[in-house]
Amino acid sequence: MGVEKVAVLGAGLLGGSIAAALKERGFGGLGKAVAVSVWSRSKSTRLKCSQMGRVFDEVCETPAQAVSGADLAVVCTPTDTIAAIVGEIAPHLKAGAVVTDVGSVKSAICRDCSAALAGSGADFVGSHPMAGSEKIGVDFADGRIFDGRVCIVVPCGASGAFSAELVRGFWESLGMRVEELSPAEHDRIVAHVSHAPHMLAGTLCRAVEKLLGDFALQFAGPGFRDCTRVVSGSPDIWDAICMDNRAEITAALKEYRECLDSLISDFDSGNFSSIASALREAKAYRDKLGGAS
Amino acid sequence: MGVEKVAVLGAGLLGGSIAAALKERGFGGLGKAVAVSVWSRSKSTRLKCSQMGRVFDEVCETPAQAVSGADLAVVCTPTDTIAAIVGEIAPHLKAGAVVTDVGSVKSAICRDCSAALAGSGADFVGSHPMAGSEKIGVDFADGRIFDGRVCIVVPCGASGAFSAELVRGFWESLGMRVEELSPAEHDRIVAHVSHAPHMLAGTLCRAVEKLLGDFALQFAGPGFRDCTRVVSGSPDIWDAICMDNRAEITAALKEYRECLDSLISDFDSGNFSSIASALREAKAYRDKLGGAS
Repeated sequence: MGVEKVAVLGAGLLGGSIAAALKERGFGGLGKAVAVSVWSRSKSTRLKCSQMGRVFDEVCETPAQAVSGADLAVVCTPTDTIAAIVGEIAPHLKAGAVVTDVGSVKSAICRDCSAALAGSGADFVGSHPMAGSEKIGVDFADGRIFDGRVCIVVPCGASGAFSAELVRGFWESLGMRVEELSPAEHDRIVAHVSHAPHMLAGTLCRAVEKLLGDFALQFAGPGFRDCTRVVSGSPDIWDAICMDNRAEITAALKEYRECLDSLISDFDSGNFSSIASALREAKAYRDKLGGAS
Repeated sequence: MGVEKVAVLGAGLLGGSIAAALKERGFGGLGKAVAVSVWSRSKSTRLKCSQMGRVFDEVCETPAQAVSGADLAVVCTPTDTIAAIVGEIAPHLKAGAVVTDVGSVKSAICRDCSAALAGSGADFVGSHPMAGSEKIGVDFADGRIFDGRVCIVVPCGASGAFSAELVRGFWESLGMRVEELSPAEHDRIVAHVSHAPHMLAGTLCRAVEKLLGDFALQFAGPGFRDCTRVVSGSPDIWDAICMDNRAEITAALKEYRECLDSLISDFDSGNFSSIASALREAKAYRDKLGGAS
């Protein structure tokens, strides 16, 4: 696709992992080598990036420098900063460049980023790679976290078909399976499979802490660890997610509460056969996920 | 402690893993080799056990045969079958033998098993190793699943101090950290850190399935997988857990619902600073778990 340089803006776990994967696998099915530039707001992170050997070819002090000559810019900063960064790089992008992001809300980002690029000759296509972990920072960069995971690609109103194809090809290069959704579909589905579960896991921690305090922690087995692992992720990115996807998260939490109410009423009335069949249905559904458990 | 033979009754993931760990590590700090006998209700499982090389020294067709001459019997069957099996082996235990279990409820089991052994010359001490996984069956036996995990040991009214020490030493031999609790304390804490979280994870699966069906599954990332992993475990053991620990599970679910209601009302009113501080408190609490995340 003629991509020779990719700019990574924001060097956290995802930004670092994208660069590592690009260097390991190259761009496109042929594993074509590409140059990778990076910008981070933090001086100490830039220093770390420059010490990461061959992962980054260029460590830049401004977003504008990083995107100079880049065919693709990937914005890997918290969701509430993405549109401002896209506005900042707009005058510095080369004609025909494509910009994407990794934010986990899409309606607001697609709207604002498309607007920020209007008239610039560059194109915005939203992305949400469903990969990552609870680890925080470029120190944990790992090019393999994308392997076999899904990336949702979200063409915006103004995205050209070529740009969407380029972004699809980019994520496929990293080993991801790409699905296209509209911004609204994305935000609804992700509220259910990611945002609300994160909130629910946080609520579990708070409920246990409230009733039992630290004493309970020594009795936490692998099940509790699994159920609450996401809560250890960076809380900083969640403030903007909660605001930007408030309506869908609220709807998902209310849907969940209805199911919980019905479970509690089964416990209250001793309707164990209903509890048993609910657990079996849940297992049948979860088992369909298959693969890496 | 003079333990020369351990009987494992029930050959699922836990029974098989206990035998594997015993053979790898021996009994007591000196790694003293012990004979391990096993009984399983299922003929095909008994066949698998006899093909597992040096893990089991003796594969028996009845619990009575398996416990013959054993110093310690570990009942690894679903919670609602444990008391009946203890009753069945009572006349066949040697004097001074100790019986324990791996059931995840303790008040009912300790009461019924102590009664079943009354006058037999053998002693019951409850156990709940907080180890395991969502995998089902002896095929997944793995002697390392106990390493560094906590085992709750629950002396019953009639347990002698020597028996409790023996059971403690047994789990420590497998690499576990032992904490003693009363039956009621155990059931309350475990309702919060294991039973209710299991129910909540199942509820999450049902809520997502209800609203989005199978379509949603392709978008499930590592977070959703983590949050719902426990649901893939055997649902069969849960029917008895729900019945035996109904009061504590119900109380824990209601406590959780209160926290959830307060979260939902924050979303409804747009109180994002309250949501943000809840997530930060939850992270601080979860981070205290430390170790293997």
